[in-house]
Amino acid sequence: MQPLTGFRDFYPEDYAIRHHVFSTWRVVAARYGFVEYDGPPLEPLELYTKKSGDEIVGQLYNFIDKGERAVTLRAEMTPTFARMVAVRHREFRKPMKWFSIPQVFRYERPQKGRLREHFQFNADIVGESGTGADAEIIALLIDVLRALGLTAQDVVIRLSDRQFWIDFLKANDVPEARWYEVFQAIDKAEREPREKTAEKLGSLAEKVFQILDHGSTNERLDTIKADLTARGLGDFVKIDLSIVRGLAYYTGVVFEAFDRSGQFRAIAGGGRYDDLIQKVSATKFDDAGKPLDGIELASIGFGLGDVVLGEMLKAKQLLPAKYTASDVFIVVADEGFRKQALALLQDLRTAGLRVDLSLAPAKMGKQFELAEERGATKAVVVDGKIASGVVAVKNLATREQSDEMIGDLIAKLK
Amino acid sequence: MQPLTGFRDFYPEDYAIRHHVFSTWRVVAARYGFVEYDGPPLEPLELYTKKSGDEIVGQLYNFIDKGERAVTLRAEMTPTFARMVAVRHREFRKPMKWFSIPQVFRYERPQKGRLREHFQFNADIVGESGTGADAEIIALLIDVLRALGLTAQDVVIRLSDRQFWIDFLKANDVPEARWYEVFQAIDKAEREPREKTAEKLGSLAEKVFQILDHGSTNERLDTIKADLTARGLGDFVKIDLSIVRGLAYYTGVVFEAFDRSGQFRAIAGGGRYDDLIQKVSATKFDDAGKPLDGIELASIGFGLGDVVLGEMLKAKQLLPAKYTASDVFIVVADEGFRKQALALLQDLRTAGLRVDLSLAPAKMGKQFELAEERGATKAVVVDGKIASGVVAVKNLATREQSDEMIGDLIAKLK
Repeated sequence: MQPLTGFRDFYPEDYAIRHHVFSTWRVVAARYGFVEYDGPPLEPLELYTKKSGDEIVGQLYNFIDKGERAVTLRAEMTPTFARMVAVRHREFRKPMKWFSIPQVFRYERPQKGRLREHFQFNADIVGESGTGADAEIIALLIDVLRALGLTAQDVVIRLSDRQFWIDFLKANDVPEARWYEVFQAIDKAEREPREKTAEKLGSLAEKVFQILDHGSTNERLDTIKADLTARGLGDFVKIDLSIVRGLAYYTGVVFEAFDRSGQFRAIAGGGRYDDLIQKVSATKFDDAGKPLDGIELASIGFGLGDVVLGEMLKAKQLLPAKYTASDVFIVVADEGFRKQALALLQDLRTAGLRVDLSLAPAKMGKQFELAEERGATKAVVVDGKIASGVVAVKNLATREQSDEMIGDLIAKLK
Repeated sequence: MQPLTGFRDFYPEDYAIRHHVFSTWRVVAARYGFVEYDGPPLEPLELYTKKSGDEIVGQLYNFIDKGERAVTLRAEMTPTFARMVAVRHREFRKPMKWFSIPQVFRYERPQKGRLREHFQFNADIVGESGTGADAEIIALLIDVLRALGLTAQDVVIRLSDRQFWIDFLKANDVPEARWYEVFQAIDKAEREPREKTAEKLGSLAEKVFQILDHGSTNERLDTIKADLTARGLGDFVKIDLSIVRGLAYYTGVVFEAFDRSGQFRAIAGGGRYDDLIQKVSATKFDDAGKPLDGIELASIGFGLGDVVLGEMLKAKQLLPAKYTASDVFIVVADEGFRKQALALLQDLRTAGLRVDLSLAPAKMGKQFELAEERGATKAVVVDGKIASGVVAVKNLATREQSDEMIGDLIAKLK
């Protein structure tokens, strides 16, 4: 009688919140000229291992299906997106600005704020390598959060550049095979004792800590920040080189959104992944795993989940009040006129109003109770007067009541 | 590089159609006072076997997960709905009017119009056993189809009553264990040679054919038809006792929506399932499998899939024209004023317009090309004049151009 562990039921009051959040995402994305797409919730496992190696499999909700295929419930949207873009990119003028709101799945031990499924707003720009695209995608993230009521006092986008760290690693002769390990150490530095991070970083530790503690100049990040400032969004952004992001595929600018209070986990994260579409579309690789063919398309995107965001909106009392199911309730005061009430019901609904009535004969008091439970603000009382085209309209808040001609009713109720 | 067999990618042009259909479903359901809910796409296998027996497993996309649980991708919404209602029904005033738009999954051999996934509009009324609820749910189905542009010339709702057949079987002393077999035979009668159906029906054949050929009086169906006629929807409905529906759990009124031309499969179907919530919530059963406890709640609902409906809307040219991504495009004619262009971009988006611009410097011609590709109807040209608060606005259809003050721009563009 319960859903599976880590999965949510959305009862109407939960769904109303989800709808509010998703609608906001959609409205803001549309203002930014992003168009929506979707892909299958089930994908070949290979799509993930090709991108992230076999280590990823431990976290996936993967299985062997009845046709003996190795498949997985999608864990993120980027592999599906990269696949779809690789197949048909020639048909779309660049830059492509696409978004999606997939439900994604991980096989993890469920804990607070970490379920086995969540919804994620994914937005990506493909085919534009300049900082203009970086600023545009970050502006979208900020405006989505703003539209939900969050301010620069509530959230901060920490902006960094993995290319800066790649240059640093090259300058220090660190072999490429070790890069990911260093990124992981920097990524965790904030949450671990310094000694532990120092141990992981070895001889690089001192130089890395110097940068983490005192920053470094970075023209690319300054340009992005200036672009966002020109849009009036500069207050939301802080350049912070300690952000590198855990995922292996980022190649340049990376960013994460946090609440300033530090009460919640990161609420969103993203970055540039200029090599990924090539990697997913390549058919030949060299000995080091570098693709020798495939489609080169510069890309940047982010993912914003619904769980941590929802907790934050709730804590800040930014969620909508209880939903209502109806605007108008038709009270059938005389069952002899139910047919006329049904005709009126149809007319009001066709006019776009949310209208309900008791589906079975019921006492007047019961009908008014149901009207209030449905959230209706007006009741239309149908009795014998409807034969001469008249009904009583009652304001359920003020209890005022007046007779109205049916012909005027739609205008009066709207 | 392809999705799994039987699964769909929704590229933006496909998604725009899906969005049009789903939005229509949501808008009409809201007018009827239905509220939206959702449940997990993955459920315990037992939820299905409890309801439909072990035979159902052959059609499911089920598997053993990493935690050794027998689970299945949901194949329909009714089991999840029945579970959710059984758990919390006391909190909701009856009748409950709920809808959902789940993606559902079957492990079937894919063929035209039959994928391994599809989306389904599900609407149900719980806690009202009278014909008023039957008429209300059928009216919703009709109005959803009407809102998509289909008329009574395009579609017909064939209305029947499994209770009529149950009474018939009782009157003819057919043991309950044989009922489902008879329902299946009647369900297939239309598509099979009469001899084959006669063979299945045995001694009942003559009486059944008499009813199929000449109908029978049925007060319940007449009442529902009269209700729908009062709403102005009578033309969409035909009483037709040959409809019984394949699913085991229907107990009363059943109905299916068809295109009148017979070109497509059934596009929707539903009926009363007054015992199902009890069956799902029961903990004790007698030797014949009848629940001895559990929650008794009269229910009726339907499912309307997106695939056959989509084919019909396409054939009848009722799908929307190509989507556009933007209303307004900002052309940066002088890169020295990009910052001002970005500030304007932000203001126009905040005002609710869908606005785009070239994220990197580009020749004017290229920018206008991009504007047209995005579907923008107006271009705002930014050059040095913006320093004195002036921009040029160009109508991309008529090619007319005029200078406007920035302060008036939002009103002019809206």
